[in-house]
Amino acid sequence: MNLAGIFPALTTPYHEDGSVALDHFKSNLARYNQTGVTGCVVLGSTGESVLLSSAEAESLLVAAKEAAAPGKLLIAGTGAESTAETITKTKRAAALGYEIALVKTPYYYKPAYRSEVYLRHYRSIADASPIPILLYSVPIFTGVTLETPEIVALAQHPNIIGIKDSSGVIQRIVEVGAQAPKEFQILTGSAGVLHPAFTSGAKGAILALASALPEKCVELHDLWKHGQNAEAQALPQRLALASKTIVSEGSIAGVKYAMDLRGFHGGQPRLPLLPLTEDKQQRIAQIVSHFKPAAVRA
Amino acid sequence: MNLAGIFPALTTPYHEDGSVALDHFKSNLARYNQTGVTGCVVLGSTGESVLLSSAEAESLLVAAKEAAAPGKLLIAGTGAESTAETITKTKRAAALGYEIALVKTPYYYKPAYRSEVYLRHYRSIADASPIPILLYSVPIFTGVTLETPEIVALAQHPNIIGIKDSSGVIQRIVEVGAQAPKEFQILTGSAGVLHPAFTSGAKGAILALASALPEKCVELHDLWKHGQNAEAQALPQRLALASKTIVSEGSIAGVKYAMDLRGFHGGQPRLPLLPLTEDKQQRIAQIVSHFKPAAVRA
Amino acid sequence: MNLAGIFPALTTPYHEDGSVALDHFKSNLARYNQTGVTGCVVLGSTGESVLLSSAEAESLLVAAKEAAAPGKLLIAGTGAESTAETITKTKRAAALGYEIALVKTPYYYKPAYRSEVYLRHYRSIADASPIPILLYSVPIFTGVTLETPEIVALAQHPNIIGIKDSSGVIQRIVEVGAQAPKEFQILTGSAGVLHPAFTSGAKGAILALASALPEKCVELHDLWKHGQNAEAQALPQRLALASKTIVSEGSIAGVKYAMDLRGFHGGQPRLPLLPLTEDKQQRIAQIVSHFKPAAVRA
Amino acid sequence: MNLAGIFPALTTPYHEDGSVALDHFKSNLARYNQTGVTGCVVLGSTGESVLLSSAEAESLLVAAKEAAAPGKLLIAGTGAESTAETITKTKRAAALGYEIALVKTPYYYKPAYRSEVYLRHYRSIADASPIPILLYSVPIFTGVTLETPEIVALAQHPNIIGIKDSSGVIQRIVEVGAQAPKEFQILTGSAGVLHPAFTSGAKGAILALASALPEKCVELHDLWKHGQNAEAQALPQRLALASKTIVSEGSIAGVKYAMDLRGFHGGQPRLPLLPLTEDKQQRIAQIVSHFKPAAVRA
Repeated sequence: MNLAGIFPALTTPYHEDGSVALDHFKSNLARYNQTGVTGCVVLGSTGESVLLSSAEAESLLVAAKEAAAPGKLLIAGTGAESTAETITKTKRAAALGYEIALVKTPYYYKPAYRSEVYLRHYRSIADASPIPILLYSVPIFTGVTLETPEIVALAQHPNIIGIKDSSGVIQRIVEVGAQAPKEFQILTGSAGVLHPAFTSGAKGAILALASALPEKCVELHDLWKHGQNAEAQALPQRLALASKTIVSEGSIAGVKYAMDLRGFHGGQPRLPLLPLTEDKQQRIAQIVSHFKPAAVRA
Repeated sequence: MNLAGIFPALTTPYHEDGSVALDHFKSNLARYNQTGVTGCVVLGSTGESVLLSSAEAESLLVAAKEAAAPGKLLIAGTGAESTAETITKTKRAAALGYEIALVKTPYYYKPAYRSEVYLRHYRSIADASPIPILLYSVPIFTGVTLETPEIVALAQHPNIIGIKDSSGVIQRIVEVGAQAPKEFQILTGSAGVLHPAFTSGAKGAILALASALPEKCVELHDLWKHGQNAEAQALPQRLALASKTIVSEGSIAGVKYAMDLRGFHGGQPRLPLLPLTEDKQQRIAQIVSHFKPAAVRA
Repeated sequence: MNLAGIFPALTTPYHEDGSVALDHFKSNLARYNQTGVTGCVVLGSTGESVLLSSAEAESLLVAAKEAAAPGKLLIAGTGAESTAETITKTKRAAALGYEIALVKTPYYYKPAYRSEVYLRHYRSIADASPIPILLYSVPIFTGVTLETPEIVALAQHPNIIGIKDSSGVIQRIVEVGAQAPKEFQILTGSAGVLHPAFTSGAKGAILALASALPEKCVELHDLWKHGQNAEAQALPQRLALASKTIVSEGSIAGVKYAMDLRGFHGGQPRLPLLPLTEDKQQRIAQIVSHFKPAAVRA
Repeated sequence: MNLAGIFPALTTPYHEDGSVALDHFKSNLARYNQTGVTGCVVLGSTGESVLLSSAEAESLLVAAKEAAAPGKLLIAGTGAESTAETITKTKRAAALGYEIALVKTPYYYKPAYRSEVYLRHYRSIADASPIPILLYSVPIFTGVTLETPEIVALAQHPNIIGIKDSSGVIQRIVEVGAQAPKEFQILTGSAGVLHPAFTSGAKGAILALASALPEKCVELHDLWKHGQNAEAQALPQRLALASKTIVSEGSIAGVKYAMDLRGFHGGQPRLPLLPLTEDKQQRIAQIVSHFKPAAVRA
């Protein structure tokens, strides 16, 4: 299974009354279908997965499966704190037709989570899962990091096909690339280092930024793939600055606002996440205006 | 409502097949009933709340309510990442007869969680809750800290009656004591600083250690209450060292093992939490042997 | 040697041309002589020791020795990154008549500084020093912390008589008190936890705040010593808040400004330390105005 | 002044009696003269500069000037905590014929060091210095980081020509490259991300690893310069792993041991830095054995 290329981390739109807006969600997917993205991730951190009920999560999995074009690869976020619950969720995603499960690290009892915990957790899940597993390390939210030796050890498992590493630490990509089996696939989760991630061995990326700027992220991947390094210098810089303002400073509310500006259904995040301040709205609007307008809303 | 004294943070025992052992849970409670603890906390971090299903959580709330002696104050852990879900859980606890809700901070989207997020989150919950709210700051697990200005601001709300601060930072107790209304009650969550917490203004404590050593924690509170500071020096030191080995180094598996040694129903934690290594078992056994044996299992 | 009580960490005043103002320095000391402080620390962090030339440092050691009243204990800061240089400085302080050396941890090569480094460093110095050694852990500046096992191990050395711990972590005071020899003396460096430090086993304190408010810090120590815990509650709170504004937020410029307000020779710090902003000046002035005016400048 | 290419961060060899071995130091330089390195850095962190007396530091500056080949660029580390002392040292380096000064951030009073402190510190030095200034951010040792906005602001100064950033954070290279004047030169200090640093806009590197493996680091720079990205993938991985074992885990003792193995004069570091454990020696020997032997000692 080839994960090369760009995957938007899908956001979750809501109706005015706070309920999940499956129609808007599908409408966004219809637009991603028309871009060069490799696929989409449902129920990632950007999707506010920790703010959704089980029923809402299930409805999004079903809706994405209905709306995604045949050629697009669908990845389901299925990580939970409990090993058993993660297995249950992963099996459910597989039953719904998902091809890969993205499993974030457990993190709550971090003082008790030594290497052995991560190894046993992931191996139990990979053993039980009918579909391949992508490790997911996102220290900015979880406060825990999968380190090189753990990743390299887990990469030996036949049902663990890669990792989404959102740390932005390029050195880890180099180290894992040097030590893991050749077929192990590294995806970065950080648009701030998209181009260096590629030049260091990452095959693809799962990005919140790609929810708002999918075609630009794909363009960067294409430039790199065709070896146009000289021309690639400007676009990585623009996307890194865009990512800093939209994703790092704006968080999910920022991604959704940028989506609104580009004709997607963004909207507000769910509480306790707050709407963007006006100041941040203006800075994001300025950044987005530098990119060619996307097609009108489907 | 007077929260002075000691509250064990209840653990969750499991049967061999991994299901929640409500009988053992009630049996533990029956023993706490016979001690001088002020009450108990159900579904706290020590209770592995993030590893339980909704149905399991509900069953524990019901069981505790059935098993607790009339005079004992029952506090329900009701914090969730979403503001709305926290309100739902808090109302449910109230409907089940709980007198106080312990609400931990949201924490997943920490880069987006500025002061205003915590203020709005807690005020929304306190406004909606039929029972008083205890703030809960537990940075070792969540990676976020309620700081003095936030606590002092929230202490103004008539339905927020106190805080459980598990940071172990005594300076914050002093600062909050100096600036919050007199009736705002500070509980420490750290047995390592139990005595200095009391001398600095804390009224009580919610402790994992009190699940294994309830009468010793109560003894320390009594010594302090009666001003026996000279005699109190030895016991705080012993409890601090016990807490370091059992709780900080052993984590939940350590607490449960110490419970087993003292005639409670401890047992194993749920995966991904691993059983104690033999080395840690021995160190905990040595620590526990220094305390007078507790009564035999009910 | 009894270190009970309060030690101001002396600041370094400068003349308009930037040179060290030994006259003002001695004048400050003359005032401390008239208070109940146990002694003074020369060349601590508060004294801007890392911004002084060797010649300036030597001149301050000499001046303090001349100006201190006979009964006051003088402690010299002699820590350097190199073990050999620390020994040289410690011997020089002894030759100048200093009774104790305060030796901060080395810290620059912190990724290489494991426990064994600290043990060998301090033991080499204590072996070579003609005067007793006080360990000094100040993580806020150095980024490294002496942990309980290291302190307890070093406390066995006959020429290491105690520690100044500026971490503000009360749990470490409890732990060290439980495990170190009875004669090992713990001094806190944090006025924010002055009272809980005393109730947990600290014998004294070396404080930047005591440079501006020596008699208030002494008063708190006296209240505690005489067991007046009830009355002691208000003063610890006031000093903790004063420390936060003057020392934590104002840093050395804040301490010096508070000294100016109370009739000492404070003045400006040396670059790169900047003068206080006007906003911070006002907040410090407000805090200081709540304390009874000190005697006029000598 | 063109800083493209590789600069070894020179180590300081000692004689058996602990004195600085200028003869060995010059002998090492003679060997670097025969490689493709662009120049050398004297008195950097790797040179144990914080463990040297003023006289020793001066002797090394003089010796390097004598031993370096005419075409090699010499950079002097001149950063001190005090602004005034940094200016004095920088002027002295210029007087000795150094062409550039590498000025690390001040760091001791980090709670007081806000952006304005760094801006005023560096501008004062750059105004006063007869030679161009390189900023130097090395958070692993100092605990402080020059952030993008500060670097971009300082890059406007005509006498600040670049930065050595040892953080290993590639995103900052991308951001600074996007926002600083084109002529501002970024050097990385982290061999673990050497190749991605180059592909992201860094022109060169100042490396401890280049003290032991100068020709390999130069080879990687050449590969990148000539666009041989495909072939460049293996060497970056090997150097990243070598850097982790030799520099990150071995620290200065590790670098010196690798130098010994490759025919340079490495030797032991000065206390409190300890010699390598045998275990680490073996791991470094294994790594070094994978690289073609260097020429015999001059």
